[in-house]
Amino acid sequence: MQTTQSEVSADTIDLALGHPSPALLPLELLREASARRLRQEDRSCLQYGYEQGDLRFRAQLARFLSWGYAAEVSPEELFISGGVSQALDLICTLFTHPGDRVLVEEPSYFLALRIFTDHGLRIGGLATDRHGLVPEALRESLRKTRPAMLYTVPTHHNPAGTTLPADRRERILELCREHGVLLVADEVYHLLTFAGAPPPPLGSFAGSGGVLSLGSFSKILAPGLRLGWIQGARPLLRRLATCGFLDSGGGLAPFTSAVVGGLLERGTQETHLRKLRGIYGSRARTLVAGCSKLLGVAEEPPAGGFFFWGRLPGIADTEALLPEARAAGVTFVPGSRFSTLGGQREFLRLSFSYYEEPQLEEGVARLAEAARRFRPPGKGP
Amino acid sequence: MQTTQSEVSADTIDLALGHPSPALLPLELLREASARRLRQEDRSCLQYGYEQGDLRFRAQLARFLSWGYAAEVSPEELFISGGVSQALDLICTLFTHPGDRVLVEEPSYFLALRIFTDHGLRIGGLATDRHGLVPEALRESLRKTRPAMLYTVPTHHNPAGTTLPADRRERILELCREHGVLLVADEVYHLLTFAGAPPPPLGSFAGSGGVLSLGSFSKILAPGLRLGWIQGARPLLRRLATCGFLDSGGGLAPFTSAVVGGLLERGTQETHLRKLRGIYGSRARTLVAGCSKLLGVAEEPPAGGFFFWGRLPGIADTEALLPEARAAGVTFVPGSRFSTLGGQREFLRLSFSYYEEPQLEEGVARLAEAARRFRPPGKGP
Repeated sequence: MQTTQSEVSADTIDLALGHPSPALLPLELLREASARRLRQEDRSCLQYGYEQGDLRFRAQLARFLSWGYAAEVSPEELFISGGVSQALDLICTLFTHPGDRVLVEEPSYFLALRIFTDHGLRIGGLATDRHGLVPEALRESLRKTRPAMLYTVPTHHNPAGTTLPADRRERILELCREHGVLLVADEVYHLLTFAGAPPPPLGSFAGSGGVLSLGSFSKILAPGLRLGWIQGARPLLRRLATCGFLDSGGGLAPFTSAVVGGLLERGTQETHLRKLRGIYGSRARTLVAGCSKLLGVAEEPPAGGFFFWGRLPGIADTEALLPEARAAGVTFVPGSRFSTLGGQREFLRLSFSYYEEPQLEEGVARLAEAARRFRPPGKGP
Repeated sequence: MQTTQSEVSADTIDLALGHPSPALLPLELLREASARRLRQEDRSCLQYGYEQGDLRFRAQLARFLSWGYAAEVSPEELFISGGVSQALDLICTLFTHPGDRVLVEEPSYFLALRIFTDHGLRIGGLATDRHGLVPEALRESLRKTRPAMLYTVPTHHNPAGTTLPADRRERILELCREHGVLLVADEVYHLLTFAGAPPPPLGSFAGSGGVLSLGSFSKILAPGLRLGWIQGARPLLRRLATCGFLDSGGGLAPFTSAVVGGLLERGTQETHLRKLRGIYGSRARTLVAGCSKLLGVAEEPPAGGFFFWGRLPGIADTEALLPEARAAGVTFVPGSRFSTLGGQREFLRLSFSYYEEPQLEEGVARLAEAARRFRPPGKGP
């Protein structure tokens, strides 16, 4: 959830929303998959499940990820989660202590930062550029302090849209290992690539330790399932699977994973993902073309994910634009919300996932209207 | 999960298991409920959900609980969880800090204790008697230290089977409020009463604050759904619903709650619960009759829940009996596992939920065989 609907009026185009389009939620596929699974006499999906996640489902997921990542993924290195937020919460509980430091990219996903704050962690922002996290900034930081973990969104970054090149991935991993820092990679947008192919996910390096890679069905199937995974080396997964919460309640998703397993088995998830890539890619281009034409935005469309991150010429603080935008019937997330250092004020994040193209065009037109009417605070007419 | 299947051989009767019977998992009901819900064109169950849980589902759940608790429950005082273990984990994250003290009954549910330990909490055991937690013991403890919370299983206690009388409930609540201690009541067995009617659940007092009552569909429907609830006053629920984890991922169970909502709506859950009460009650009586006849156990059958808690005449430490029991093809949880004070050694916990009556009788016969062969450590033949 990126925002609550109650904050905006019914006809507002809410470009803050990080939700998939309602029309892209595959009700028919899940209807068929549920019916198919529940026709079987096997009741195991209703029972307490194996803590790491059902083995058959992990095998199905491993095959899907091996295809999607173009790299071999083993069922043994997968732990079934209730989505990325749940995974992050559990990782904080088990691998950090209040007062510990967590390093994040500047800017970073603001709701992950809230999860860290709930766990009493202190957040340190690291410099990024148009290729994502700058390894030198990490190196400098590690010289001075010893954080419990580094949280990164390596591919189609939320909000910045950047993708770390392969050499930076290796360098960052090397630095984390050298300093004993857990590398937590939020790879939720990796599979949602619509232009080119990103470098191998950090999950590919999980086998040799020190990395937990988080994935989810929220962006590629349906958030309501609350189903995701953590890819990591066995000793790390063992700590997750043997914690009190899991030991008491068993695996996190026996029922939903059984339903989704059928979709993986039959290749339906792959077909659906290909469809999403086409649609979201087209939406991204439409949104950014509008921003370029009507707002003079210079940034290129993102190559994947749900979000566009850009600057509006002449607007130094997008937070100040928000009231005018709301009045014009559109909203967005101001860049400052993603900053741990009080920066990013000139940026804004626009989502292209929720709305169809005509609404995206209308949203951009409203934003342009708001920008035209906008008078920076302190400057009279 | 009370134990992992891999610990015991295939033909062992595992009376440690706290699982429902496979045959009692209502596959047909969930097949119909899923089909009915997913035939509707409403895709909201696939989207990110409202943080506190879907309002319609909370209204359905409130009606069911009002019936089950014989006391009015409001949808506003319900938060939808991923089950009791998930709820406990979240409560620990948000309402405690490492080093805080949590008070529990002696004995207490051993896997809850592990959740507390994962959160760095220090555990203090409080005396109980055959009516459950002794209020005087709580009062004494509160005179000396200020814990973050009290964790109690007020009805059909796991493991002890006790049910707190109404006057003790009020006294305990009063003490907690007086000392500003959060009262966390694990009421997962309350609805599973097969003899008499327990006093009102602690959830009934939630409205006036200071209490979080945890419930679940795991024991009354299917653990694989990972679906439960927290009943509490609005300010407490607000803290839960606005945490970073929920803010990021939305409500915890949009899909599964939509499926189960249909069962609540049509009264199917009530019918199923009535059936379970009959079956589990009969199993409890069969198990205890066997223990009485073959082992000379003096305790009465429990009035609800999943477990029997008893002493075996002549056996001072049931842990020592475990190897002999395993050799005879039966297992159980020794009383010491539930103790925070190194006590309860003369007790054992036997589950009657998983097996049907002939297997329960066979399990007791094997246990009697093990007890006959048993030589206490240090005593030669």
